Order: sequence, then structure tokens, then C-alpha cells
Amino acid sequence: MVATIIDAPGVNLLYGENPLIYMRLTRSTSTGIRSSNLLLAAALIFGVLFLSVDACAQSSIALPIMPLPSSVTSGSGEFLVDGNFSVAFDGFVEPRLLRARQRFLDTLSRETGIPFTRETASKEAHFRIQSNGSSAAVQELGEEESYHLQVLPDGVRLTAANPLGVMHGLQTFLQLVHITPRGFAVSAMTVDDKPRFPWRGLMIDSARHFIPLPVIERNLDAMEAVKLNVFHWHLSENQGFRVESKVFPLLQEKGSDGLYYTQDQVRHIIDYARDRGIRVVPEFDMPGHTTAWFVGYPQLASGKGPYQIERHWGIFDPAMDPTRESTYQFLNTFIGEMAALFPDLYFHIGGDECNGKEWDANPRIQEFKKAHNLKDNAALQAYFSGRVQKLVASHHKVMEGWDEVLQPDTPKDVVIQSWRGRDSLLDAAKRGYRAMLSNGYYIDLNQSAEQHYLVDPLEGIADKLTPEQTANILGGEATMWSEFTTPEIIDSRIWPRTAAIAERLWSPQQTRDVESMYLRLAVIEQRLQYWGIQSQATSEQMLERMSGDPDPEALRVLASVVEPPKQYAREELREYTSMTPLNHLVDAVSPESETARRFGEICKRIVAGKASAQEWQTAHDWLVLWRDNDAKLQPVLAKSDITAELAPVSQSLHQVAEIGLQALEALHTGKAVSGDVQKQNLATLAAAGKPQAVLLLMVAPSVELLVKSAKMQ
Amino acid sequence: MVATIIDAPGVNLLYGENPLIYMRLTRSTSTGIRSSNLLLAAALIFGVLFLSVDACAQSSIALPIMPLPSSVTSGSGEFLVDGNFSVAFDGFVEPRLLRARQRFLDTLSRETGIPFTRETASKEAHFRIQSNGSSAAVQELGEEESYHLQVLPDGVRLTAANPLGVMHGLQTFLQLVHITPRGFAVSAMTVDDKPRFPWRGLMIDSARHFIPLPVIERNLDAMEAVKLNVFHWHLSENQGFRVESKVFPLLQEKGSDGLYYTQDQVRHIIDYARDRGIRVVPEFDMPGHTTAWFVGYPQLASGKGPYQIERHWGIFDPAMDPTRESTYQFLNTFIGEMAALFPDLYFHIGGDECNGKEWDANPRIQEFKKAHNLKDNAALQAYFSGRVQKLVASHHKVMEGWDEVLQPDTPKDVVIQSWRGRDSLLDAAKRGYRAMLSNGYYIDLNQSAEQHYLVDPLEGIADKLTPEQTANILGGEATMWSEFTTPEIIDSRIWPRTAAIAERLWSPQQTRDVESMYLRLAVIEQRLQYWGIQSQATSEQMLERMSGDPDPEALRVLASVVEPPKQYAREELREYTSMTPLNHLVDAVSPESETARRFGEICKRIVAGKASAQEWQTAHDWLVLWRDNDAKLQPVLAKSDITAELAPVSQSLHQVAEIGLQALEALHTGKAVSGDVQKQNLATLAAAGKPQAVLLLMVAPSVELLVKSAKMQ
Repeated sequence: MVATIIDAPGVNLLYGENPLIYMRLTRSTSTGIRSSNLLLAAALIFGVLFLSVDACAQSSIALPIMPLPSSVTSGSGEFLVDGNFSVAFDGFVEPRLLRARQRFLDTLSRETGIPFTRETASKEAHFRIQSNGSSAAVQELGEEESYHLQVLPDGVRLTAANPLGVMHGLQTFLQLVHITPRGFAVSAMTVDDKPRFPWRGLMIDSARHFIPLPVIERNLDAMEAVKLNVFHWHLSENQGFRVESKVFPLLQEKGSDGLYYTQDQVRHIIDYARDRGIRVVPEFDMPGHTTAWFVGYPQLASGKGPYQIERHWGIFDPAMDPTRESTYQFLNTFIGEMAALFPDLYFHIGGDECNGKEWDANPRIQEFKKAHNLKDNAALQAYFSGRVQKLVASHHKVMEGWDEVLQPDTPKDVVIQSWRGRDSLLDAAKRGYRAMLSNGYYIDLNQSAEQHYLVDPLEGIADKLTPEQTANILGGEATMWSEFTTPEIIDSRIWPRTAAIAERLWSPQQTRDVESMYLRLAVIEQRLQYWGIQSQATSEQMLERMSGDPDPEALRVLASVVEPPKQYAREELREYTSMTPLNHLVDAVSPESETARRFGEICKRIVAGKASAQEWQTAHDWLVLWRDNDAKLQPVLAKSDITAELAPVSQSLHQVAEIGLQALEALHTGKAVSGDVQKQNLATLAAAGKPQAVLLLMVAPSVELLVKSAKMQ
Repeated sequence: MVATIIDAPGVNLLYGENPLIYMRLTRSTSTGIRSSNLLLAAALIFGVLFLSVDACAQSSIALPIMPLPSSVTSGSGEFLVDGNFSVAFDGFVEPRLLRARQRFLDTLSRETGIPFTRETASKEAHFRIQSNGSSAAVQELGEEESYHLQVLPDGVRLTAANPLGVMHGLQTFLQLVHITPRGFAVSAMTVDDKPRFPWRGLMIDSARHFIPLPVIERNLDAMEAVKLNVFHWHLSENQGFRVESKVFPLLQEKGSDGLYYTQDQVRHIIDYARDRGIRVVPEFDMPGHTTAWFVGYPQLASGKGPYQIERHWGIFDPAMDPTRESTYQFLNTFIGEMAALFPDLYFHIGGDECNGKEWDANPRIQEFKKAHNLKDNAALQAYFSGRVQKLVASHHKVMEGWDEVLQPDTPKDVVIQSWRGRDSLLDAAKRGYRAMLSNGYYIDLNQSAEQHYLVDPLEGIADKLTPEQTANILGGEATMWSEFTTPEIIDSRIWPRTAAIAERLWSPQQTRDVESMYLRLAVIEQRLQYWGIQSQATSEQMLERMSGDPDPEALRVLASVVEPPKQYAREELREYTSMTPLNHLVDAVSPESETARRFGEICKRIVAGKASAQEWQTAHDWLVLWRDNDAKLQPVLAKSDITAELAPVSQSLHQVAEIGLQALEALHTGKAVSGDVQKQNLATLAAAGKPQAVLLLMVAPSVELLVKSAKMQ
């Protein structure tokens, strides 16, 4: 159960009569209300669903929305959603809006279990929508997306300049619906909302692991829910070429193992995305990351070939030959075909990680460099990118590329996607290029939601860029690279953490309360399951599958406190190819353990002397659970080839928990621990904190904190 | 975790060295092995995954397959499923078989998490399929469905007369895959299998609640998994007409609220079903159950109209006018259109529950009866059915109908679906009609899997019918009437119980061990989730939704011991219409509580003096959990309009558990209980056993058993 209340920039801390609870309330700029009446009102609004992380610590409540709107003013009373609910349009209507209404009603039905009649007597509808007009025929960067949502007890009005704002407003309403003693309701309030950045993207790498259409669809649904507006589709790689080309059919026939999107399917996804206010930007990575192209068309390559679809992960040598006119003729035709297929103005040509080895090994290319006065491979790639940019422009598209395409002569309209660091973002913006941030939003690296959340495209930029230069920073994109992601597990790799990134890109800059974010993240995670995301059900099924046990209780306990290795560590622990089954515990668990995170928070309060009795008890109960789990789990683990490797991890959890219980006891009684024991315990914890079975035992560092805080003899 | 072993008719009970464990093994008719070596082999085969219901009682292990094959002979060793797995055809191939292979590989990937290459070098494939030829262009009743599956450590051979048998064999293999210490494996064995009955159906009522296409699809997937071969599609009702008619478009335009299947969608489902070895038999119920037809075409009705789509449940007066030639002209055209759309030879015209009131109220119809010497409304309906049968036959179809269509002059080729009882089945078969059983398979009535499982179409029929008459009994159909079923919850209403009915209709008559059935039902329930059935995830989401709590632990405890009311009791407890939200606890829980069932089994053993120490402990632990749950649950319940009504149910569970703990104590110590106390307890239990909040507290009767068995003063 969660928690509620207005938490937005321009925040006040109001302390109520209960000193243990504080609530953050929006200062309504229009009314300036700051009285404790507002506190009361706000508490009433949401049915007083306080989430008490800890009765003796500060509890936090927030509007259960992600991303938080830019402005919310609370009203009084609530609007009830019952079987009489219906939605009507005043004024402008278009087929897309009618479909949006039907999807809205379908989702509302899933959220409530209430069937709604499909035909609306518009005179009587309590939910009225007014769009001032249409949006662009092809959704454009920077189009108006704002909306105004007024919820009163007797009706709801949603107004917006165009359907994009309407769709955002409908999503906000869907997130506000909650059960109360009076039925499903939305508290009275006025929301005025608009995005901070115009480019809020999610990249999905469909190339390394092919991601089937229904998975793309449900992730577009989830993107809509958190107001992301760019689907960046990474479509070609060393490991696969994933779009049907009618002009060069060997691309997909030889380069995809039969796993590619037909052009009809691509058009379907583009329509599907447009219906949800989402642009689709295709990426065809070149001149590196192109092995799969060369299986069918080796003449494009700088090496001799023949080429095979790459099965390993990493950076590889094959690269397009930038010296031959035939390469550009091919690309001209290909880009023309794809430019017609993808209506978006932007066309991503990748450009990253070309190691130049095939160029170095080819004497003709070396000759070319000399003849053209290209001093190094970076210059050669800049030459290539420049040629490609002209092709892209000739097909009426604007080129986008990763950091590497930013070179001295890069045309000014090229959009730079910064992946290697914030410096290149700054550099690009300063030089007048539009740019967006992905560094820090690499969701494949298994970092925490907090880490991503606190990365801000504009952080510390104010004193380095002029306002005009700052405006060049368009936003950012979460990137779902798929070396360790399959269609089965991709939902849990993307969600819910990407909702935190979506909030960073939509909500005002000051919105950065991590505790509030985690509370709301838990809510959005549940809601996403209604909207089709299958992360929770899949994780459960994978535990059953790997254990052969339909109710693997002890395995769940272990699963709840481990995480995948961070950054690029996984590849160093074990060898993986594109054919390696991703069916182990590391693949089944969330990139971020909520249990370990909460245990860590409690441990911090314990050592700070701020923990409540209930927190002490929770820590104790968890440690007992973990200590006793190993005895139950070991016999289960031995039955399966997949779980057998978890035996030492389970044993480590047992040891860590035993040490934790001793430390808790020592901290509680104030009794000193012998230095030798502590030293030995710390050694055990250090070992337990190292990756085992490609897993990190996330509670080990928190127990270490307890041990270090206990008195020593 | 479950358990494994060969359990099929022609069973031997073998007692191994451990006297506590018995295993049922097939007596292989070909080898006649009966030694304890087989016991050992069988234990090894399945990695000794014994399900210990109770360490001190007899444990049972079975082949984790549903339906059980007609013959299984165990081999030695196992076939490992790894990334090198591939499938090839020897001889006959058709596109349907290629699609079946791809679906098989996709499912196997979901079962194992292993990616399989799509392109097969057929020379090296370890899984070889041989189909002797094609099956009929339109699947026919009684077509050969047998298959022979030989699993050896170094390869698998599947042979069948036609693709129907191949598809059944593939499903058997999929169910046999299980995790072992050596990886995913199938134990070596030989399966010779064929169905007992040729007509094994599931009826889905898409008319009372519309059931969208994806829900139909995933239920067809599940039907394939348990070898059902007839999808009976109930398409028209008082509450809705659900198929597009191009000739009479007002049928769907006025009679469906916009919720109907287009003809393209119908064709898609027919193709989808054919790919899975499933026939599609449409039902258009007449002359009653037809209000929705009359909204657009009131001239068909016997009453004056106008008509509205019916929103209530029950039996209603509107009926077709059987006296006007225009009715038959309409039906001739309509049946002609639908006969062309649905290729199956059989065409179901319903015929049930026409109450005749509109006929009685219409003087012209009364006149007609007199003029034609029709003594009552049954005779009038028989006249109508006779006319309709001729129309159906003129469109080259065989008519099928519910009991009521069986009249003295009914043509002999009409197929009778018996819903009112077994007598009509017997009567039909004796009189030379082909017939099938649905009475006893009404899965909408929330009976237990055991109750359905033990209903046998041929039970006690041997001495009443000749072998020729017995052959008239084609099989049976589970019927999913949808008054209390929505697309959201239909999966849990159909599955897993329908798997027990599927076994009754496929496996040999002697296969009726209830304990084995329940063990295997738990396995198939899990597998069905891999195959797309969403019963478990949906139930969990509904608990969250109704409580507003993302982790409603105490509500889960209550949910685990309640069931919906049985038979037709629900309609008497509360008023329902087609617009009533089915979002309460009664809708979220399974029709059969596995926890209550297991608790009941333990209680029976306790009072029989056969319970183990562990069973005593389990009963005690459960009772403590239930007793203490109320205090946690009550504050949660009050927060939601939907859960508020559960307060007395939760309190009843508390009381029942307290009484249960006292009784357990009395039984354990042998101390006598005062008569007054016992009397009062029994009164409390009787009250707790009555429906509250449209729910039955299923553990009350078991506690009553304990109380009655305790010594009295």
C-alpha cells in the first residue's frame, strides 16, 4: 500500500501534529496555501494511505505518480470511478483520440475490474476532454505536450493543445485511480503539467537478441504510461540485421537467422507508437557493428571475408569500407528505402566503437588515407560520417549518431547521443550541436534506480553553458543493450528503473527526493503489470523452472537478496555467446533488490542510532530468515543443473546472516566484540560480497556496516 | 516439486525397500517387467523427485503428465535437452507440421530458457518425426489421433499416422521435460497412446461475456496441451450476438454492444485451432436464448418487441416464431452464411431452455399449434427443430443440439449434447443417436476437480447398452458458461480443472486415482502458465487491486481458504447483471482451494488415527496462521470498498481456527471436551460454513470433523 501526496518541486515540509510524520506538499503558486488545513486536506484526499517505512522514523508520502507533474494543487473531495463512468470529447476529435479513449477505458477496466460501456452519451459523460486541435502528421521533436487536468467530485476536465497532451493527461489520471472505502476514486486536484525535456527516449537493442513484436508493443505501452516519447530502435549489429530490406534482401536473409521485422511489422509498430505519442527513431549502426550486413554483402566490408553472423559479445573488427564509392551507392539506396519506411525526421547511424583494425589491415585503405590526407582512423571515420550525413540529408532526414560522429567538420544539424560521458554532451552543446544524454542511463549495467535517477542532463551545466547552449540539450535516453537480455527477461531489465529515468526527463529539475522516488517506483511497478509488463510473473516462473519446484520458497528468499554484477563485470566472470541460455538466477532476479535496499536503509539507521524498535525487529527477523534458509535450500539446489552452482551463495547468506545477528546483538547490548572475531567476520563478509555464481549478495555490505559499528575489545 | 512416475491403467503397486513409499508402475505388456529393478529404474528416471505429502504416510509419485497416456514402458537413462536440440521430419512434411515444430521449439524454449536454432540440419537432429501422411483437409470426428513416442538417451522418435498424432506426441514430450542435476531431461521411455473418446471438447460462452481473441487463442493453446480436440464456440445469447453476419448485419450491429468477432477473426481462430488439432463447432442457440437477435430483427420473435440486449442472467421469454415461413427463410440464409464460414461438419443449434411464454402469449402461435396438432410447446419446439435440422442438412452439415432437441421424430444423425443428466445420454445412445456428456462437466459451477474427474461418460453403462449403442457415446465437453466469467478471470475458471476432464476423456477408463490426479494437476497448472494461461498472475493482481496493497499478504491467507459458492447458489446470494464488476474476492480465488483440500485430507487422517507427526504439525501451523491472520487483515479490509465486506469472513476464519486448535489439542491429549462447549463450537462452525460475502470458508467442515471426533465429557 502506498502513499500519496503531493510531492513536487517548490516543496514545503510541513510537520503535522504527529511529529513522526512529515508530508511534503506542493506550494500552490496560484493560491499560496500553506496552512495545516492543507495537510489535513491532503491526508484526506488520498484516504490517508501512509506508507510507514518505520513508525519511529520519518514517514514519507507522495502522489503515487511517475513522473511527478510539474504542478499539482489539491482540491477537496474525490471523483468516484464507477460503472457509470464515461468519456466524451468537446470539440476536436480524430480517430487517434477515439482509440486513445478506448485504450484508456480498457486500462481503467483492468485497474478496477469495472466494465465500462463502450458507447457514450456525450451529454452525460463526467470525464470531458478538449483538444484544441491536431498534432503534426508525423510527430515532431518539441511539439507541445502540456495538459491541464482538473478533477472535481462531480467531473473531470482534461484540456490540451493537441492529442499528445491529452494522452499524457489520461495516463496521469490512470495513475491517480486508487481504491478507497467508497470505491475507486481520484482525489480532487488540479494538475498543470508539461515536460522538462522534449526528447525522452528508450532504446531497445533488437539486434543482439531479437525482441519479438508483442514484447515491443507492451514496452511501448509502458513507455506511454511514464510519458516517454521516443522509441530508439537499434536494428543492426554484428549479431543480427533485423529489418526486412526489399532492395537488399540478403541483409535479413543471411544476417538474421530468420529473426527480423517485416516492413509491415515495422509500419505496425510505428502506428502503434504514434497512437501513444511516441516517435520511432531507427538506428543502423555503421561503419562498425556491421558483421551481419557482410554475411550477405561482403563487398561492403573492409576485410576479405567471408563473414558469419557473430555469436560472441564484444567489439569486433569488421567495418564498412569507407574508401569505395560502391559503399556509398549501396548506403544511398538503403538509406532511401529506410527513410521512406521510418517517417521520423531523425535517422540514427550509430558510429560507435569502430576499432579500425580492418582498415589498418587493408593496404588500399591505407593508400586512401594518405591520398586524402586523413591522418588517422578517426579522421577516416569522420570522412565516412560526413559522406553518410550527406546521404541522410539527401533523403530529407537529420542524422543522429553516438559521440564518435562529433568531429571538427560535423554539420551543425547532426544530433549527438552521448554515451561515453557527460563531457561530450557539454562539448557538443557548447559547439552548437543538439545533444542528448545516455551516459548514466545504461540500464543494461544493472545499476540502481537511484543511480540513474540522480543523473541529470543539466547538472552543473549552468556555469558552463549559455542559456542558448543549454537549450541544445534535448533530453536523454535509457539504453537497453541486449547482450544479457532476452525477450523473456527484458521487461525486468527495463522496468521499473526506467520509470525513474522518465521522471528525471519529464519532471522539474528539483524533483530528486530518492525516498519518494522509491515509494512511487514500487507503485508504478505494480501498475506496469496491469499494463502488460510481465517482470514479476516471469521472475517467479523462472525460479520454478530452474528448480523444478512449483513453490520454491527457499529459493525465493535467496533470490530476494542477490543482484546481477554491475557494469561490465558479468562478461569477465563467465563466457557468454548469443546462444548461451539466460535462465539462471542472475537472469531471474531484478537488477535491484528491494529487500537488500530496505535492509541497507535500516542498517544505516541502526548504526546512526536512529532505528526504531520495529526496525531492529525487522532486521533481526530478516537475518534469522536468511540464516535458516540455507538448510532448507541446499537439498533443493542439488536437484537441478541450473541451481547447483548456488550452493556457495546460499551458504554465504547463512554466514553473513549469522555474523549480522551477532553484530546486531553486540550493537543492542553494547557488549564489545573481540578484535580477532571482528577481523575474521570482516574477512568472511568481504568474501561473501564478491561475485559467486555470477551474483552479488547484496546484504553483505550492510552487515559489514553493522560489524564495523559494533564496539571492539 | 513433483513427482513423477509411470501411473497408468494396468497398474501394479510395488512396495520398495522403503516401506513408506509406494509407486505405481505400468506393467509393460510387452516386457512384463515387475521387478524391484523397475522401481529403482523408475526412481532414477525422474531424478527421484518424490512428492512427500507426508513423510509418515504413503507418498505417491506419478508421471507428471495430463492426460496420462494409455501405455508407457520405462526405459533406462534419459535424453538431455540442450542447446544442440533440433527436430527433423522423415518423409511427409506439410506447412502445418513445420508450424507445429516451430511452436514446439518456442514452447520448449519457454520451458527451459534455452534458445534453439531455427534451422535444422536434418541429418543431425536427435528428435525425428515421422508422419505417415496428411490428415483430412477439414478435421473430422473420429480421425486417427494415436502416436508412438520413443525416448532413448541418444534420440527421440515420434511416429504417427498423421499430423494430429504428431501434435499430441509433441505435447506429451513437452510435459515430460524436467530439470535434473544433469540439465533438462526426458527419461527414457516408450509411449503408445491414443484417445479413449473421439470428441473431447471445451465450450466457451463468448456471448454472455464477450471473450476477446487473445483469450480464445491462449485457451486453444492450453486445450492442445491437454489433447482436447473440439472447441465448441457458444456465439449467441440473450445478452449478445457475437459474430459478424454480412447478410444480416443488424445482428452484430444492434445485438453486441460492438463486441463481436469479424468473419476474418473467426477464420483466424479456425486456422489457429486447426493448427493445434482442434475442431471448431459453432453454436447459435435457438429458438430461445435469442433476445440479442431480435434487437436488430424483431420480426423473428414471437413477441411484439421492441427488444433490448438483455443485461440480466437467467431464462427469458423471447423466442423465435416457429410458425412463420419468414423465420425459416431468414435462418436458411443465415445458416448458409455460417455454414460457409465454419468448415466443421457439425453445427450446433442449441435448443435449450425455451420457456414457451412468448408462444403462449401469442394467439397466432396458439392457432398454429392447434392447426398442426402440436399438443404442447415441446411438440412445437420439435417442429421447429425438425425444420431447422432440414436447413442445416441442406447446407451439408450435421445438426447438434442440447438434450431438448431429442424428440420422437428427431433424425438419427443429430448429435445430442446431454446437459440435464446422464439419463438423456443413455436414452439418446439407446435410441441410436450419437451423444456426448456435459452434465457433470459444468466448470462454471465451481465444483472440485475430483467431482468432474470421477464423472465418466460410460460409468455403469455396460449393462444398459449394447456395444453398438455404447459406441454412440462420443465423449464429452466441459462447458464454460460465462455469467460469472470475464476475459480477466476466465483462465482460472477453466484451468486447471479442465485438465482433469481432458484426462477423463482421453485416458483409459481405469485411470481414476484422485490423489495422483491432484499431484499431476498441480504440475500442469504450472506448465499452463508457461503456455500463456494467466490464472495465477491475475489472481495475485486482483488481490492487489481490491486492497490497494502491492503485497497483500494477509489477504492472500484468507484467499487461500475460500471458494466461490457451488452450483447456482451465487445468483441467490446477490443480484448480478452483465454490468456488475466481477472484481471481488470470490472472482479472484480459484474455484477450488488447494490449501483447504490439503487441510481436509490431513484432518481426515488425523481423525482416522493415521496422521504423521508432521501432519499434526502442519495442521497446527495452518490453524495458528489462520487464527492470527484476522488481526493483521482487518485494518487492510477497511480501506477498500471491495474488501470491507470480508470483515466477517476473516473473523470467521479466526474463530474456526481457534476452535480447530482446541479440537487438535483435545485429540492430541485425549482430554474430553464439555458437551456444551462442543455444541457451541459446532454452531459457530455451522454458521462459518454458510456463505458470507458470496464466499465459502472451506476449512470449516474439516474443523467440524476434528471437533466431532474429540472425546466428549
